Amino acid sequence: MSSVSPELLDRFAAIVGEKHALRSEADLAPHLIENRGLYHGSSPLLLKPGSVDEVSAILTLATETGTAVVPQTGNTGLVGGQTPREGKSDIIISLERMNKIRDVDPVANVIVADGGAILADVQKAAETHGRLFPLSLGSEGSCRIGGNLSTNAGGTAVLAYGNMRHLCLGLEVVLPSGEIWNGLRRLKKDNTGYDLRDLFIGAEGTLGIITGAVLKLFPQPLGKQVAFAGVNSVEDALSFFNLASSLCGTSLTGFELMPRFGVEITARNIEGVRDPLESAHPWYVLVDISTSDSAETAERMMMALLEQGFEAGLVQDAAIASSVAQQKALWHMRESMSDAQKPEGGSIKHDVSVPVLAIPAFMREARDAVMAAMPGARICAFGHMGDGNIHYNISQPVGADKQAFVARWRDMNHIVHGFVLAHGGSISAEHGIGQLKRDELASIRPAIEMDLMRRIKRAFDPAGIMNPGKVVSLDQTLPTN
Amino acid sequence: MSSVSPELLDRFAAIVGEKHALRSEADLAPHLIENRGLYHGSSPLLLKPGSVDEVSAILTLATETGTAVVPQTGNTGLVGGQTPREGKSDIIISLERMNKIRDVDPVANVIVADGGAILADVQKAAETHGRLFPLSLGSEGSCRIGGNLSTNAGGTAVLAYGNMRHLCLGLEVVLPSGEIWNGLRRLKKDNTGYDLRDLFIGAEGTLGIITGAVLKLFPQPLGKQVAFAGVNSVEDALSFFNLASSLCGTSLTGFELMPRFGVEITARNIEGVRDPLESAHPWYVLVDISTSDSAETAERMMMALLEQGFEAGLVQDAAIASSVAQQKALWHMRESMSDAQKPEGGSIKHDVSVPVLAIPAFMREARDAVMAAMPGARICAFGHMGDGNIHYNISQPVGADKQAFVARWRDMNHIVHGFVLAHGGSISAEHGIGQLKRDELASIRPAIEMDLMRRIKRAFDPAGIMNPGKVVSLDQTLPTN
Repeated sequence: MSSVSPELLDRFAAIVGEKHALRSEADLAPHLIENRGLYHGSSPLLLKPGSVDEVSAILTLATETGTAVVPQTGNTGLVGGQTPREGKSDIIISLERMNKIRDVDPVANVIVADGGAILADVQKAAETHGRLFPLSLGSEGSCRIGGNLSTNAGGTAVLAYGNMRHLCLGLEVVLPSGEIWNGLRRLKKDNTGYDLRDLFIGAEGTLGIITGAVLKLFPQPLGKQVAFAGVNSVEDALSFFNLASSLCGTSLTGFELMPRFGVEITARNIEGVRDPLESAHPWYVLVDISTSDSAETAERMMMALLEQGFEAGLVQDAAIASSVAQQKALWHMRESMSDAQKPEGGSIKHDVSVPVLAIPAFMREARDAVMAAMPGARICAFGHMGDGNIHYNISQPVGADKQAFVARWRDMNHIVHGFVLAHGGSISAEHGIGQLKRDELASIRPAIEMDLMRRIKRAFDPAGIMNPGKVVSLDQTLPTN
Repeated sequence: MSSVSPELLDRFAAIVGEKHALRSEADLAPHLIENRGLYHGSSPLLLKPGSVDEVSAILTLATETGTAVVPQTGNTGLVGGQTPREGKSDIIISLERMNKIRDVDPVANVIVADGGAILADVQKAAETHGRLFPLSLGSEGSCRIGGNLSTNAGGTAVLAYGNMRHLCLGLEVVLPSGEIWNGLRRLKKDNTGYDLRDLFIGAEGTLGIITGAVLKLFPQPLGKQVAFAGVNSVEDALSFFNLASSLCGTSLTGFELMPRFGVEITARNIEGVRDPLESAHPWYVLVDISTSDSAETAERMMMALLEQGFEAGLVQDAAIASSVAQQKALWHMRESMSDAQKPEGGSIKHDVSVPVLAIPAFMREARDAVMAAMPGARICAFGHMGDGNIHYNISQPVGADKQAFVARWRDMNHIVHGFVLAHGGSISAEHGIGQLKRDELASIRPAIEMDLMRRIKRAFDPAGIMNPGKVVSLDQTLPTN
């Protein structure tokens, strides 16, 4: 299978030492697949470099010999960006040994971490110093900073704090040539030439490997309130979001939309989750408020918001978490909504965004078309309403054949993405492009945009060795190992 | 002087019509110089296109014929980025006719504007719809959105709202080839490939011409408080900033540092400005608080902040503006501090940033070295303390020869920037690189970083016609017109 010679594999392995070079099928297996089971790649070798210099030596050799490599951190990506190509021999570069917190400065509000540092470890290090690192996602216990940056990760706190792009001040990147770019700046303002940092963020490891980053910290909020409210419609949820925005401003730190079906299956399939409201409602919102001045402000805001929501007829029923444990339980329900689909059979997923105001129309149109195309489909469309970001997931009809259902993935994409594009939306709000959406992206974007992306790729990686076949496909010949 | 043939000039002029093509010395004169009088360029022709298609036609012809062009919007830049090269024949493309607000959507909180829209007009359009467009700078009455984006403008509201990069959702750009990239997206989240938007922002018109933009709007704050406080030292100002940050969080919308000398000359040289405090203090801070929930919250915050500042011995005296007019007067003092230097003779300016915590050390070191190198120099170092951004300006010694003083610009740069770099700072926090700092940037940045910038420039502008000689110099032959 491999077109990389054993001698060359040995040269790569020698850089990190045999102990940190995996070659057996059993050792490699977990790195060749991803969570959704959509991709199964192949690779003759996984390297675990222990330093930036080792990463540099690997990439120098890769460019010299035209050997394709794929960077991998927590292997939690959802679009196959971290999975080696099928039928090729991409060498996997895992950053799992480069997992240190290099520095925490709570006064300057920055933390410096290795590309392989686990997100939860960064959160904990910040907390230990009385600070908040706000990026928060379901996979935070295993995903790693380099991957979070390479996919410009979003999650549940984007509304108030922005996504990974907004949380990063500086980067250290090893280029395909093996050269190291030290851009580990800690500055809030720096207008000195082209924005290289933002080019590497979201590039999914196709322009270089992010080995270190300077990230922003925030004060721990003094006040925190979480509520769960039943609403009659997506329209009401949107009106309630607008009310919350104007009442709470930047103190509105989360506003998540969930359908009845999502709450049902989460209560049914996820240990410890229960519906906190007495009766059923077609839709639900989770509201999160954080305040910097005092706990009372958050309380006052939440009470005023719910009161006005009831008065305006937007909120039908609501429960406010009365302890940190209850707050966590409400968030746990929302964060397990995707996992809760697994016991229900196959699911076809979308990660889309539309302008916030277009959400109700988009949801209506997509539902009608999906139900017409597949009677019995169970739609589980939930997500970050305040960001316009909906995870438009579809569970198979009860009793349907899973294989036959999943085979309709592209059909369903076509339907859902059609409405997304009609609203000027995005077919990948936060998960990225990877392998899953590469060709679709090229088909929907203007030719000039894809052309500019290819020009950048060629300028940074003339040998085409960095995570080939992901994000953008080149006309030029790629390494075939 | 011109190496562009009269026939070719006629072809360019025909695109916009003779009425919108300026050729006379008198018409061109104001476009060949910039505010500080550092550059005086030359040009045979200024074109005022009236549409994106006309801009496209101009650039198509420029690339075909290898004719250099320089985009110009409000001509308020401070680094010569908008000034044609000296002794060459760059054709100036002015966006002043493309000055429309295309759309305001106060519910979605976006505004779409032409690249030539004046910043103040964008602010006003937002206000008319009950919204805030927060970018605010001294030149807002004449600077234009395309220039603000191309320089990633900062100003006084960056602390809470970010700079122009953070205020932009989407762009429309005409590429050097004449192709039009329509990236006018209105999405909060969109992870679909390389971040082209952020590459054009801050590129100072060297990669394309920004002809339109989707910008973010914010709710008008309900509460607003502005205070002016005398403090004993930069250290005390920093401690007071930290107190303000932790008390006010994101409601702290401005924190500006000013020296006694700056307040003195502003009161002396600027109509209508007076020092609101009874006695003199070595340093001053201007504190701006905006709150989204109510006017009372802002009042309460400001009172608590000043009270705690007094108690901690950080604040010596303070005045709170009691009307909108007084608030504007305090901001006017701060914003005229640079102009107030003009009647004092020559001034040598720096626009630097350092990590916020390093400000006191940097100020001490720079002052000692500047005073040693030039006894009698009058330092007017003021700026956006919360962003680490100091405008380190030096007024000539009383009675010194202005010419001889300004001739020492590079010497003084060398001294001031030396301390900036030692603290990991930036030599251009918000004004950009242009002509002024191009060679210095290349001398202080790692070779790989400049190399990546050159690769991007060549990939986007292979003919080298877009604002050549600015930001990054290429080894390749540039158009010599």
